[in-house]
Amino acid sequence: MVSKSQKKLINSLHQKKYRKQHHMFIAEGLKVVQEFIRAGFQLHSLYTTEEESFDIEKGQFFLVSESELKQITQLKTPQKILALFFIPEKENISHNGLILALDDVRDPGNLGTIIRLCDWFGIETLICSDQTVDCFNPKVVQSTMGSLARVNVVYTDLVDYLKKHSSSHHIYGAFMDGKVVYSEKKESGNTILVMGNEANGISVPIEKLIQKRISIPRFGDLQETESLNVAMATAILLNEFRRDSFFTEK
Amino acid sequence: MVSKSQKKLINSLHQKKYRKQHHMFIAEGLKVVQEFIRAGFQLHSLYTTEEESFDIEKGQFFLVSESELKQITQLKTPQKILALFFIPEKENISHNGLILALDDVRDPGNLGTIIRLCDWFGIETLICSDQTVDCFNPKVVQSTMGSLARVNVVYTDLVDYLKKHSSSHHIYGAFMDGKVVYSEKKESGNTILVMGNEANGISVPIEKLIQKRISIPRFGDLQETESLNVAMATAILLNEFRRDSFFTEK
Repeated sequence: MVSKSQKKLINSLHQKKYRKQHHMFIAEGLKVVQEFIRAGFQLHSLYTTEEESFDIEKGQFFLVSESELKQITQLKTPQKILALFFIPEKENISHNGLILALDDVRDPGNLGTIIRLCDWFGIETLICSDQTVDCFNPKVVQSTMGSLARVNVVYTDLVDYLKKHSSSHHIYGAFMDGKVVYSEKKESGNTILVMGNEANGISVPIEKLIQKRISIPRFGDLQETESLNVAMATAILLNEFRRDSFFTEK
Repeated sequence: MVSKSQKKLINSLHQKKYRKQHHMFIAEGLKVVQEFIRAGFQLHSLYTTEEESFDIEKGQFFLVSESELKQITQLKTPQKILALFFIPEKENISHNGLILALDDVRDPGNLGTIIRLCDWFGIETLICSDQTVDCFNPKVVQSTMGSLARVNVVYTDLVDYLKKHSSSHHIYGAFMDGKVVYSEKKESGNTILVMGNEANGISVPIEKLIQKRISIPRFGDLQETESLNVAMATAILLNEFRRDSFFTEK
C-alpha cells in the first residue's frame, strides 16, 4: 500500500524546493537503487513489486502492486522499484588533482552524462555553479546509472570558488576560440577544467578567471557545423587530460 | 489549414514503414528545416505559424494556427515550423578516409549525437547495420540539429560491408578489453571504426572481422564504473583518430 501522504511526499521530491526541505531524493530501478545502497546512501523508504528483491537494514520497505507503482513513478517504463534516499552531508571532499567545474549547465541529461564521465575518468569532485541543474533532479539521478553514488557534486558560487583556488590550481576553460587542446600542455598538478552553459558557453565573470583557454578543433565544414554538445566536449577534454597522465604516471 | 489526409500522412511518418513507402521524413524547428533546405534536400510541404519565415522554391506552403501545429507536432515544445522532406537517393558516396560503422545502435538520441559527432569530425560516411535505428526517425532528426543534412548515412548488411572492405581498409573495433587506444597506432589511410550496440557491444559475426581491438582506459574505480555510453565512447575515439592526423597533416 502507498498512503496518500507517501504519494504526496514522493511527488513533492520532483521539485528542488522539497528535496532541499526533506533532504531526500528519488531513485528508480534495481541497478540504480543498488548502487546507492552500496555507496552507503541512507535509505528512507523503498517501494517494489517484487518481495524478494531487497535485503535492507534501514528504512521502510513497502510491497506494492504494479498499478500503485505506476502512480508514483515518473518513468515511462516503470522499473519495479522506487526508493527514497537521504541526501548525504558533504564531508572531507577532496579538491586536489583534476576537478571539473560546470558554469550553468541546465540540461538534466547533460549533467547525468557528465557525472558518468567523471566516474569513468576518476574525477572525484564535480563543482557546479549554483545555477547548474540539481544533481538530485530525478532525470539526472536516472541518467547517471548509479555514477552519482561515486562522484561528489558540490554546488557553490563558482566565481568565489575559482578566485579561492586561482593560486593553488591551474584553471582551464573550454572555448570555441581557445587554443587547440592537443598542443596545449596539460598540467599534472591541481587543475580545474571549466565547461560552460549549453547555449552561452562560459559566462563573462568566470571567463576572467580562466588561465588557459582551450578548444577541440573541428574537422568538418567550418561554416556549417554546430558546436559540440557540452557533454561530448567534456568527454573529449577529460580524455585529453587523462591521456597525458596515462603516459607520465606509468 | 491542415487537412485530414495531411494529418494522416504526417502521423504515418513516425513509422519507418511509411517513411520508406513515401520516401519522406519530418523535420521540425526553423534551424533544422533551414539546414535541410540549405543542404539541397527536396521539400515536400511546410507548415508554419509565421508567414514571413520562409521563401521556398518548391513544395507546398501552409500557414497554420498554433492549435493546428500542436495537432501535427510530436515535440513537447512545438517549434513554429514543421516540414516534410523527401529522403534523397544516395549517389557517389565516398568510402575513403575515416569511416564510422555502427553495429546495431538502437537509441535515437545516441544515433543523433553520433551523427553530430561525424559532422564535427569531418566523417562524411556513416555505415549502419540494418538493425541500427533509422536516421530519419523524428527523434534522430531533431537531435542531430541539422548535422544529418551533411553526413551520408548508409544502411547495409555490416558483415558484407566489412568483408568487402577488409583488404582496402584498416578495421578497428571498440571493446571493453581492447588495447589502450592512446598507444595504438592509428592508420592514416582508409579506415573503418566499428562501434557496438548499447547493451551487447559488437556482435560475434562482426567481431570476427575486426583487425584491431581498441578501448578507452578507465581511471575510476575499476570494479564499479559502468561502461561508457556508446555516444561518449564514439566522441572520444573519433577525437583520438583525428588528433593524430591533426599533427601529421600540418
